[in-house]
Amino acid sequence: MSKFTLALVAAGGAAAGAAATAVMYGTSRNQVQTPSLATTTTTTVSPTTASGPPVPVPASAIKAAARQAPVDPSGLYQYGFPGPISDLRPAASLVSSFDRRTRNPAWVAEHITPISVAMRDADRKFSVFVEDVGIPEKFRAKLKDYFRSGYDRGHQVPAADAKWSQEAMDDTFALSNMCPQVGEGFNRDYWAHFEDFCRRLTNNYPSVRIVTGPLYLPKREPDGKWRVSYEVIGSPPNVSVPTHFYKVIYAEDGKIGGNVSLGAFVLPNAVISNDKPLTDFEVPVEAVER
Amino acid sequence: MSKFTLALVAAGGAAAGAAATAVMYGTSRNQVQTPSLATTTTTTVSPTTASGPPVPVPASAIKAAARQAPVDPSGLYQYGFPGPISDLRPAASLVSSFDRRTRNPAWVAEHITPISVAMRDADRKFSVFVEDVGIPEKFRAKLKDYFRSGYDRGHQVPAADAKWSQEAMDDTFALSNMCPQVGEGFNRDYWAHFEDFCRRLTNNYPSVRIVTGPLYLPKREPDGKWRVSYEVIGSPPNVSVPTHFYKVIYAEDGKIGGNVSLGAFVLPNAVISNDKPLTDFEVPVEAVER
Repeated sequence: MSKFTLALVAAGGAAAGAAATAVMYGTSRNQVQTPSLATTTTTTVSPTTASGPPVPVPASAIKAAARQAPVDPSGLYQYGFPGPISDLRPAASLVSSFDRRTRNPAWVAEHITPISVAMRDADRKFSVFVEDVGIPEKFRAKLKDYFRSGYDRGHQVPAADAKWSQEAMDDTFALSNMCPQVGEGFNRDYWAHFEDFCRRLTNNYPSVRIVTGPLYLPKREPDGKWRVSYEVIGSPPNVSVPTHFYKVIYAEDGKIGGNVSLGAFVLPNAVISNDKPLTDFEVPVEAVER
Repeated sequence: MSKFTLALVAAGGAAAGAAATAVMYGTSRNQVQTPSLATTTTTTVSPTTASGPPVPVPASAIKAAARQAPVDPSGLYQYGFPGPISDLRPAASLVSSFDRRTRNPAWVAEHITPISVAMRDADRKFSVFVEDVGIPEKFRAKLKDYFRSGYDRGHQVPAADAKWSQEAMDDTFALSNMCPQVGEGFNRDYWAHFEDFCRRLTNNYPSVRIVTGPLYLPKREPDGKWRVSYEVIGSPPNVSVPTHFYKVIYAEDGKIGGNVSLGAFVLPNAVISNDKPLTDFEVPVEAVER
């Protein structure tokens, strides 16, 4: 890739401030096909098929047609699609979509059943936290981002929901299944109990699906304005610390076309007293969608 | 859709706090096909084709194979894909991708040429700001969100870049091409001059592509921690106020496989003195990607 400097001397006038000299980098374009500009084709009607006089095509009409699209905004795609790309990860124990902007998953979906929960073929002491190499290095959450951040590497799909095989449990230890979570009083307490509550739904339902993920919610400030505010851990800052977490639960009766019980919960990423009933955090499913 | 209440009485124990009674909503599942569970098929090797003794298939191996997937996480998709969905809008004068979380575009791409810039077939006094009906109502930016917010409805693709037809200019007035921008001292001043600078690049380049969009960048706080913090306008809060805006410029020489000059700029959504040179805001293209 050749790199050269181009000095663009812009015109003066009112825009004197902004019209500074810009240094731009030239690069050879990796172009498969040039987007063609709009052209106007005029067709002459053959006298053997036309019964009337030739339809006049005034010059102004041609000019107007030519004006239809002097530009081609989609031609940008020759350089690649600008994104966003939601790195989708289908694994044995989960499916997740990664948000490159926050370096957190957008959502992680799991499926548990009475059988999968009863199986005991994995132990978390054999699992290790790993960076997700399926995500390009510069958009990935890093182990060093979490190091000494004060936050837990909080599983979205809990390791304990994937005891049915060591590989399935290992899947849950990728950082693309993690969000920075408050440890004491949340991840290791209330949130863990909440996860346990979800697992025990399999006592009543043959099939339970759970979607878990982070939220970055606005808060009303003293001046009456709403503001989203969250920490970003890592140096340089890389992984966003969510303000809240949600779970949407689909408890299925296991019949084809059968009934499904839906529940949605939003919990703050903060210390929560174990006395607080879970129902306090229940929300309409629509609220999570928003 | 039948709606009934299901009382789930969860077990007690350590999880007493979280294991509250959850009220869940039952709904009839709109299911086209039930995801099939993994089954194990054992094949007997025919003695006419096998030369050696039959390969033993121990019961433990079958058991192990059966354990491969007691669950089906992707089965969630029967309820629809959780997203995120980046509403893509291809219009005559722009292509944009909308971010439903921030209710701002993620990026808006345009294409200008010496001809398109020279054309004068539109006047902004005939254009009106409109909500983008292509985006579901609950994820859309609304006119009332901007009303009395203190922010301008800031064009990402400037109206003045689409003077080649009234329709093309009207395209730029959809709220999916807008972000809340500081008016005096930014949108109506420095940013406008910057847009003018981009237009004048067509004096030197036959084809110029510009991608514009919002950023929500972290700032180092007095305690040394990095924090993303931005206002959300509307009542209830709906449209995020970006902290910064970027433009990535592709100045093409118009030849097939030719050269392209690249430039990237990041400007704060704040009053900027017109004395400040634009080069102060130039960044490596990679920085915008991040």
